[in-house]
Amino acid sequence: MTKLWSGRFQKSAEQWVDEFGASISYDQKLVMEDLEGSTAHVKMLAACQILSTEDAELILSGLATLKQKAQDGDLEFSVSNEDIHLNLEKQLIDEIGPVGGKLHTARSRNDQVATDMHLYLKNRVGEIIEAITAFQEAIVMQAEKHVETIVPGYTHLQRAQPISFGHHLMTYFWMLQRDKERLTESLKRIDISPLGAGAMSGTTFPIDREMSAKLLGFSAVYQNSLDAVSDRDFILEFLSNASMLMMHMSRFAEEIILWSSEEFRFIELDDAFSTGSSIMPQKKNPDMAELIRGKTGRVYGNLFGLLTTLKGLPLAYNKDLQEDKEGMFDTVHTLLGSLPIFEGMIRTMTVRTESMEKAVHTDFSNATELADYLAAKGMPFREAHDVTGKLVFTCIQRGYFLKDLPLADLQQASPLIDEDIYHTLKPRTAVERRNSLGGTGFEQVHHQLGLAKQLIG
Amino acid sequence: MTKLWSGRFQKSAEQWVDEFGASISYDQKLVMEDLEGSTAHVKMLAACQILSTEDAELILSGLATLKQKAQDGDLEFSVSNEDIHLNLEKQLIDEIGPVGGKLHTARSRNDQVATDMHLYLKNRVGEIIEAITAFQEAIVMQAEKHVETIVPGYTHLQRAQPISFGHHLMTYFWMLQRDKERLTESLKRIDISPLGAGAMSGTTFPIDREMSAKLLGFSAVYQNSLDAVSDRDFILEFLSNASMLMMHMSRFAEEIILWSSEEFRFIELDDAFSTGSSIMPQKKNPDMAELIRGKTGRVYGNLFGLLTTLKGLPLAYNKDLQEDKEGMFDTVHTLLGSLPIFEGMIRTMTVRTESMEKAVHTDFSNATELADYLAAKGMPFREAHDVTGKLVFTCIQRGYFLKDLPLADLQQASPLIDEDIYHTLKPRTAVERRNSLGGTGFEQVHHQLGLAKQLIG
Amino acid sequence: MTKLWSGRFQKSAEQWVDEFGASISYDQKLVMEDLEGSTAHVKMLAACQILSTEDAELILSGLATLKQKAQDGDLEFSVSNEDIHLNLEKQLIDEIGPVGGKLHTARSRNDQVATDMHLYLKNRVGEIIEAITAFQEAIVMQAEKHVETIVPGYTHLQRAQPISFGHHLMTYFWMLQRDKERLTESLKRIDISPLGAGAMSGTTFPIDREMSAKLLGFSAVYQNSLDAVSDRDFILEFLSNASMLMMHMSRFAEEIILWSSEEFRFIELDDAFSTGSSIMPQKKNPDMAELIRGKTGRVYGNLFGLLTTLKGLPLAYNKDLQEDKEGMFDTVHTLLGSLPIFEGMIRTMTVRTESMEKAVHTDFSNATELADYLAAKGMPFREAHDVTGKLVFTCIQRGYFLKDLPLADLQQASPLIDEDIYHTLKPRTAVERRNSLGGTGFEQVHHQLGLAKQLIG
Amino acid sequence: MTKLWSGRFQKSAEQWVDEFGASISYDQKLVMEDLEGSTAHVKMLAACQILSTEDAELILSGLATLKQKAQDGDLEFSVSNEDIHLNLEKQLIDEIGPVGGKLHTARSRNDQVATDMHLYLKNRVGEIIEAITAFQEAIVMQAEKHVETIVPGYTHLQRAQPISFGHHLMTYFWMLQRDKERLTESLKRIDISPLGAGAMSGTTFPIDREMSAKLLGFSAVYQNSLDAVSDRDFILEFLSNASMLMMHMSRFAEEIILWSSEEFRFIELDDAFSTGSSIMPQKKNPDMAELIRGKTGRVYGNLFGLLTTLKGLPLAYNKDLQEDKEGMFDTVHTLLGSLPIFEGMIRTMTVRTESMEKAVHTDFSNATELADYLAAKGMPFREAHDVTGKLVFTCIQRGYFLKDLPLADLQQASPLIDEDIYHTLKPRTAVERRNSLGGTGFEQVHHQLGLAKQLIG
Repeated sequence: MTKLWSGRFQKSAEQWVDEFGASISYDQKLVMEDLEGSTAHVKMLAACQILSTEDAELILSGLATLKQKAQDGDLEFSVSNEDIHLNLEKQLIDEIGPVGGKLHTARSRNDQVATDMHLYLKNRVGEIIEAITAFQEAIVMQAEKHVETIVPGYTHLQRAQPISFGHHLMTYFWMLQRDKERLTESLKRIDISPLGAGAMSGTTFPIDREMSAKLLGFSAVYQNSLDAVSDRDFILEFLSNASMLMMHMSRFAEEIILWSSEEFRFIELDDAFSTGSSIMPQKKNPDMAELIRGKTGRVYGNLFGLLTTLKGLPLAYNKDLQEDKEGMFDTVHTLLGSLPIFEGMIRTMTVRTESMEKAVHTDFSNATELADYLAAKGMPFREAHDVTGKLVFTCIQRGYFLKDLPLADLQQASPLIDEDIYHTLKPRTAVERRNSLGGTGFEQVHHQLGLAKQLIG
Repeated sequence: MTKLWSGRFQKSAEQWVDEFGASISYDQKLVMEDLEGSTAHVKMLAACQILSTEDAELILSGLATLKQKAQDGDLEFSVSNEDIHLNLEKQLIDEIGPVGGKLHTARSRNDQVATDMHLYLKNRVGEIIEAITAFQEAIVMQAEKHVETIVPGYTHLQRAQPISFGHHLMTYFWMLQRDKERLTESLKRIDISPLGAGAMSGTTFPIDREMSAKLLGFSAVYQNSLDAVSDRDFILEFLSNASMLMMHMSRFAEEIILWSSEEFRFIELDDAFSTGSSIMPQKKNPDMAELIRGKTGRVYGNLFGLLTTLKGLPLAYNKDLQEDKEGMFDTVHTLLGSLPIFEGMIRTMTVRTESMEKAVHTDFSNATELADYLAAKGMPFREAHDVTGKLVFTCIQRGYFLKDLPLADLQQASPLIDEDIYHTLKPRTAVERRNSLGGTGFEQVHHQLGLAKQLIG
Repeated sequence: MTKLWSGRFQKSAEQWVDEFGASISYDQKLVMEDLEGSTAHVKMLAACQILSTEDAELILSGLATLKQKAQDGDLEFSVSNEDIHLNLEKQLIDEIGPVGGKLHTARSRNDQVATDMHLYLKNRVGEIIEAITAFQEAIVMQAEKHVETIVPGYTHLQRAQPISFGHHLMTYFWMLQRDKERLTESLKRIDISPLGAGAMSGTTFPIDREMSAKLLGFSAVYQNSLDAVSDRDFILEFLSNASMLMMHMSRFAEEIILWSSEEFRFIELDDAFSTGSSIMPQKKNPDMAELIRGKTGRVYGNLFGLLTTLKGLPLAYNKDLQEDKEGMFDTVHTLLGSLPIFEGMIRTMTVRTESMEKAVHTDFSNATELADYLAAKGMPFREAHDVTGKLVFTCIQRGYFLKDLPLADLQQASPLIDEDIYHTLKPRTAVERRNSLGGTGFEQVHHQLGLAKQLIG
Repeated sequence: MTKLWSGRFQKSAEQWVDEFGASISYDQKLVMEDLEGSTAHVKMLAACQILSTEDAELILSGLATLKQKAQDGDLEFSVSNEDIHLNLEKQLIDEIGPVGGKLHTARSRNDQVATDMHLYLKNRVGEIIEAITAFQEAIVMQAEKHVETIVPGYTHLQRAQPISFGHHLMTYFWMLQRDKERLTESLKRIDISPLGAGAMSGTTFPIDREMSAKLLGFSAVYQNSLDAVSDRDFILEFLSNASMLMMHMSRFAEEIILWSSEEFRFIELDDAFSTGSSIMPQKKNPDMAELIRGKTGRVYGNLFGLLTTLKGLPLAYNKDLQEDKEGMFDTVHTLLGSLPIFEGMIRTMTVRTESMEKAVHTDFSNATELADYLAAKGMPFREAHDVTGKLVFTCIQRGYFLKDLPLADLQQASPLIDEDIYHTLKPRTAVERRNSLGGTGFEQVHHQLGLAKQLIG
């Protein structure tokens, strides 16, 4: 098949070489964006009198036909036409004759593909932001139910201090909130039109770039034509934001997996979000959480792939840039899959409040209470820490918890200790009293939930 | 040496184990931030009547002494005290006695280190933004001198179309502008205080987190104590922004290296930014550009290191997070080194305008002019492209350039061609006429420079 | 549809959840390996009298039918059956009835999938090694033609010393040779059978793991059942070897791109390995080289993805491991695509010997000759370097090359210089005299080619 | 200060530019390797009569003096002399006069630095292999003590089947064994001399590369001079092997952290390998394991840094390659720190056998026993799985374990079940009977330990 650019060539590539270079197998995902871009381009060319009204109408009707075919799944793509742009141009010419060749006036594939990707990503980022919000709503819903459910808080996976389970869950709300902020800010750099930059240097035709941008719903246009065609920052920024979002989900997933274990037994996932084993009949595995944790690597890999590809590339367009697409598509797919799954897991999980409460009553996570108690009575905190540490060691040797120590023993360790210490040592007291701004105290958690609800509208 | 947290321990670690776990060898970079953080904390504790005025004054004077010592380089740090926090607390106690132990009231190392890093990064990002602006100024300065210097524009490293060298340089201005935007937006998430989050759950002391935040110049406070101590997004976001910035510099560096080669000869770097060879006496190497290109890998590595470290970490603090520091310090160092070097290279380079002009007169980068000429006369662009491609092939066989073809030959290819084609084919004409918004036409480049100068103030 | 493991479940997942967790869309690539593995397993079960001969024969005939269907493209896979293993087991049962359920005796999907992947990768690595050898042959072919073609050697992309173009090309031979060595060594860890490890702990059935391994052509068996099911080192090692191989190709690609530029003009690629532009009719782009250079990032990304996924995973199988496949498949596809393309480019390229020779006669790449000449006459090398450097500077100012300097001027710089210096300064002399082992001297290059030909048989 | 290569330069770089380009701050680690390399080089030059015996002796005595000074810490390095090579050459000249300038005859920094790094890495890889062996010994020691200690085996962090704790530990032995294999194989590509390759093309001096290689203890020489100076595969291969090794340690670390938690309580780490909290007096944190898990990211980052740096670099030496060092040094440091720490942790940990045994008696990890029991009696495995799954569900509802079900209930589920099922369901029986090769049966574990002990000698 003759290539649309073959004028100066004497020889064609073989099929297997074409296949290696072609992007049509994956960039056909951009079919609607490409047709929209062409439509806007032609309207602008007509308005600027670069195309006659007649030619423009003919081309527009051809593009409309192709859109319809695309929706009906009736377009066939060919590797010999390399990419979505040449495939569609070829089909347009087949549809309406040589006048279809006027579509590419004052345009190059370089600005065309960039336009398609800006359009594509702008829409997907919008959907991702919505999916994050839905996930946040599920978190808020569970957190509200569990403001007063007490659970050990961990550092180093060792029990540290008793906290509100609602407070713990809300940590993920804030991570997601930052993800949304970053994605929203990135839109400023996605929602911008490269169309009209041509191959790299603009065009001699009297086009109106602001008009085509407006027709496509873009908020701004690139101010430098080389930048317009060689910039892939907006994809990198997306992949970077996606990596952080996946990292957050991987941390939450790790906790879901821990909490579902026989050892923790803090939650039970709904059957609808669990699977079994082909060999072990008793198994109920939290595989959705594991899978999302595992997919984190994949998204990181996509980010790293594009960063590597862009390193050291001279201006302006180089074929290396074709490798910007699959990682982006895959990342979009991964996020739009993972977010609703995670939302569903959280929304439907059963919280085993009794296991949680049992845990906090049989550990040393109230040791800080004793140290703070002493510090509040004037003992330098460093000494209070030391006195408490020694008491913990004594308890471990005797098989006691702090609340089990007789007052006499406590007072021997420090005469500052009084009967009221037993109230102080209660997990509920410990949580309730942590009323510093952003702390785990119930009042604070309610305040936090209020803020969160405002943020998600 | 007895550890400050050793109350419940029966046995110390050996020296070599301590050394492996200690961070003091690098986190001593945070000494001033740590002392500032402690100062604000103590002032707040006093204002909230958690510390007596007397104790607070004593501690503040001790902290002032340590600050002076730090500035004079008189502080000695010890591996046995693990990190900058315990080193300073120990020295404070040595300085003012056991009352120094009250400093750590209502605070943990977990919120303390997070505070230090937010303070540190906020300042460094400010400096980096300034260094970018200086770099942009150098670009604008050179671009202004070379608006009308014509050079081949490349795609696929093949000559594509003649462009303004000033226009080419300005591409990097816009990349850097996006870097600045991203860094500036990230400040919102850096300039926020975790102080008062304690180990993870807040504190029972009636502290005023907004007060300490204000004393430290922070614009906001974390709303969730677990988030405050486990969030490292602000560092990741910095590393990601730094990676994109380095990627941009790597692309520019690649071009500097190409342009300095014997084959291109487009620029000559100043001796002050070049080095020689230990064996080849004639060499003058653009090693600063190569080194910056090479360091891109290092910064990417720092980003991926931290992304990996954070993957799958449960809440709240885990020792893994200690690995957040060296990559951040190294990245800051790399950026604050590379930016002024690049600025200097650009500011002092000699542009060989004669080589550039020679290049554009002896190539086919004006072929698009011919195709556009035909398209403007009504031939569908796709046909115009084909006609031109065939003429290029003829020229190559005959050893001609397009401008050397007799009119008769051109007219044989298409009767649409007239005498005025020779003017159209001139590189200067080609550049001048690309007057579409953001294009390489001189008028557009001047317009662009105007916008740029507004942006950098 | 009822899951094969659903005994203890009360509720099914919804379709969209199933889709997210299912791997059948890509692990169907393993269909032949999975059927082979099952065939060997059943034969072994029969030999060990765990299955009756009758049952075994029935199952084997069912498996044979499925193999035939697979070859004919007649198998249909369903997302509800999750993966290739359950899809095939289900189809077997549909084919031969409940006795098909005996296939999974003494086996788990955990050892089954590991077996499939060992089989798959073993075969692909063999093919990749062959493709490398073919690529090396193309290099040797061109190198042999160009032993005496002289070209500038570069360091820092500055001309350094004249060298044999054949010698330059052979550098890539040795890189590829190391790639082959590493891939060959890795086979030791790929060619090993996990089959029989069960879910993780072996099985109570009296199986013969060495027998099934032998039937599948494996050279060894895993000695630890947990290791057998959780080891993905063999894939990582492959991805790491693939990354190095791509890195080598990216370096060669960079040179192909430079050499094809108007500025270097050292080679011309065959039309069959080049493409044109949709807008610029004169363009002939080395896009295969660019694409391979760009794909380097993709393969790095696959490596990094899996490294991340595996980080911190506890034993034994976790669903995260499902993410080991797509990156591996994609990398295999990329290598088996890139290697023949590169081979073809090298085999068919035209070397412009005249441009190369012209280059070495009009530069300072012979400066080392002068310094070595002086050093050989007893001047300390460091002084000889300095004397030569100053002469180069004089030449640059006067617009001369070293060979153009009158003897008087040379002797003024050092009386050690004689008339024979002009012979020494000739590029051909410079190359010929570098006869140290592995050097660019023609004799050495011929010696090297001899070694190379032995290595590729 | 005048540069040793400044002959053709008119202007020096400023101090801050020098500092950016200099590598002396870190490549001074190579001081001994550099001196050894120079010593061998001079001996060879003398043997080949390129240097007079007199000059050679003078230089050798100068080098000996520098070695002594290096050992005594008496060498001072200067940023103006860029790197270790020029620093030492300068000091040699200061020591013995201009004859010191003859040292660099027939050598370039390009082959010199490559030689240093091959020497350095060869030695370090040897040490790392030894450290791995010591770690393996600790594993074998603990595994031997715990062959018959029964613990739940996990998949998906859900209890899967009871296994021998010794068997579980031995999994890490095999991972480490593969690490050793890979590192050992890599030595073939590390233990090879680039010395004599000069800047890139060899030398005109009649040197004997095999002699200098032999003097330095290298087993082979590079066969291509361009390859010799531009190859960094040996470092990449090391970083890749190091990444896999760290990945293995990160998995083990994750388990150590889980096992040390209050929820698992399977082990207790020695106080010497744990630390406390600055605020929570009860804490005993497994931070060494966390830190090693965290450092995994750092080593991955080093690998990806170098992979990126090398991508797309043309031949031969480019300054980018200077960035090969810090990541390598850091990785060596991390491994030589982490391996002995991990060895110590394992060697000194207390195994809480009673918690482990308790765990396996109160879960469903024996469900596979029941399914296998039915399959062995002729029920197709798939049905046996289903019957068992339903019994598990019944148990969960009644609060039973399988062993608690009355025989009547079991027989109702399947008449194939007999009294002997209760013996089969015992965890010890389950483990003991998994006697397939590499399985967790005691006999197999003993067999495995025998193999392991042979491998570590």
